[in-house]
Amino acid sequence: MLGDEEASFLSAARGILTTDKGVKVAARAVRLGDRTLRLAGMAKGAGMIGPRMATMLAVVLTDAPLSVVDAQDSLSAAVADSFNCISVEGHMSTNDTLLLLASGAAGGAPLAGDALRSFQTELRELCIELARMIPDDGEGATHRIAIEVRGAATRDDAYRIARTIADSALVKTAIAGGDPNWGRIVSAAGYSGADFDPNRLSLSINGTRLYQLGQPVDFDAPATSRSIRENRETHLLLELDQGSATITFWTSDLTVDYVRFNADYHT
Amino acid sequence: MLGDEEASFLSAARGILTTDKGVKVAARAVRLGDRTLRLAGMAKGAGMIGPRMATMLAVVLTDAPLSVVDAQDSLSAAVADSFNCISVEGHMSTNDTLLLLASGAAGGAPLAGDALRSFQTELRELCIELARMIPDDGEGATHRIAIEVRGAATRDDAYRIARTIADSALVKTAIAGGDPNWGRIVSAAGYSGADFDPNRLSLSINGTRLYQLGQPVDFDAPATSRSIRENRETHLLLELDQGSATITFWTSDLTVDYVRFNADYHT
Repeated sequence: MLGDEEASFLSAARGILTTDKGVKVAARAVRLGDRTLRLAGMAKGAGMIGPRMATMLAVVLTDAPLSVVDAQDSLSAAVADSFNCISVEGHMSTNDTLLLLASGAAGGAPLAGDALRSFQTELRELCIELARMIPDDGEGATHRIAIEVRGAATRDDAYRIARTIADSALVKTAIAGGDPNWGRIVSAAGYSGADFDPNRLSLSINGTRLYQLGQPVDFDAPATSRSIRENRETHLLLELDQGSATITFWTSDLTVDYVRFNADYHT
Repeated sequence: MLGDEEASFLSAARGILTTDKGVKVAARAVRLGDRTLRLAGMAKGAGMIGPRMATMLAVVLTDAPLSVVDAQDSLSAAVADSFNCISVEGHMSTNDTLLLLASGAAGGAPLAGDALRSFQTELRELCIELARMIPDDGEGATHRIAIEVRGAATRDDAYRIARTIADSALVKTAIAGGDPNWGRIVSAAGYSGADFDPNRLSLSINGTRLYQLGQPVDFDAPATSRSIRENRETHLLLELDQGSATITFWTSDLTVDYVRFNADYHT
């Protein structure tokens, strides 16, 4: 983490964009021996706007020297935890695009071993930072919702649960209304099709435990509601106690303004 | 179809319900030789309201003489095309219930052969009639949307396409806004996971062809929009030209009032 380098790149990346509206940029710099590698990324899009238009577009630039195979593998791994873990309304677009452009201008041989792994960690973090900005900028959104699933038997189970919760209009309206509605969340986990024992499921919202080992527990509902209303991000933590797979998925809440925007839009 | 018998049963079924709000009842009578069989059904529910409450409840009564096995088989077959083909917001409930109570009071031996098939047809039609009333009564709904998929290779493909379109917030807001937005509909079919050739897909809304063999076609957009706005039901017809499987799925549109209702509700 090189504060000045990152600030300078962030500023350069912002300069490329012609508008400040919904600007989504991120930058990183990493020192590896005598080389400094820089990464900058930018994204546009906040939902499936229309299939003849560009929807989600993101470009990540780096001066790191990378072989073609490592560049593709590094990006694919980063995407799994970032751009494939976000939704606004769950309507998949026909033409989302993410590009990694690696110039090699930092010099030296293509990265390998620990240096490659360090680069991959930075790339993954940058992609997550950028991807999270998309539901944050979702149409009409008043909250970003982070859905963290821990202790799943497999990553696929964790993903199904997180994605199903993210797609639930009832969960998304509950967060919009500041309602710590554990029932809507655990029932969505239940119909996700993931394999887990409902009697081992626990749920916390913004650090407050609402549901433990398959049963609702007493909690301070007004304080939890206040915490939802007063924070841009609502954090849902589901603990399954089935294994060690984990995932975090980000989505937007569902508001009256989302419906207005999409019902008033005409082709 | 015996008009007077059905009217009399419908009136009796309504009499059982204690409120006129969102009353969902249906009745049928069928003459089989010298016997008249009567069926009456009633349902409540218009979405996943809360997991500790009853949500969708439906009861069908008949005086038909039925063996236990035939009663269960007849109901299971009817459910596949009715209560399993509806959604409001797609959030599955923990406790939907549908019961068939058969008294045998019409007399005679348990139905078999053609008589059983006639009964099953009436039961299926009654369940469809009843099931369609649920999204029609959906929270905040201004339209019922009928999604008919024809020409799929398998029933599962047809179901996936219909269900994915029914779950799309972008499709549901488009109908709420009277927008004949073919792009949102065909892109939802595309990400449904069903197996079909997109170049053979055609789409009509309320009888107007918008999209043919994978391409948009010229159509009268203002007239189609007017037809959506002026009718309670919007009919989406997707023709796949892949086989002979067909399905119809019913859902509600997504309105500002839906969000208000579900965001303002507090546990």
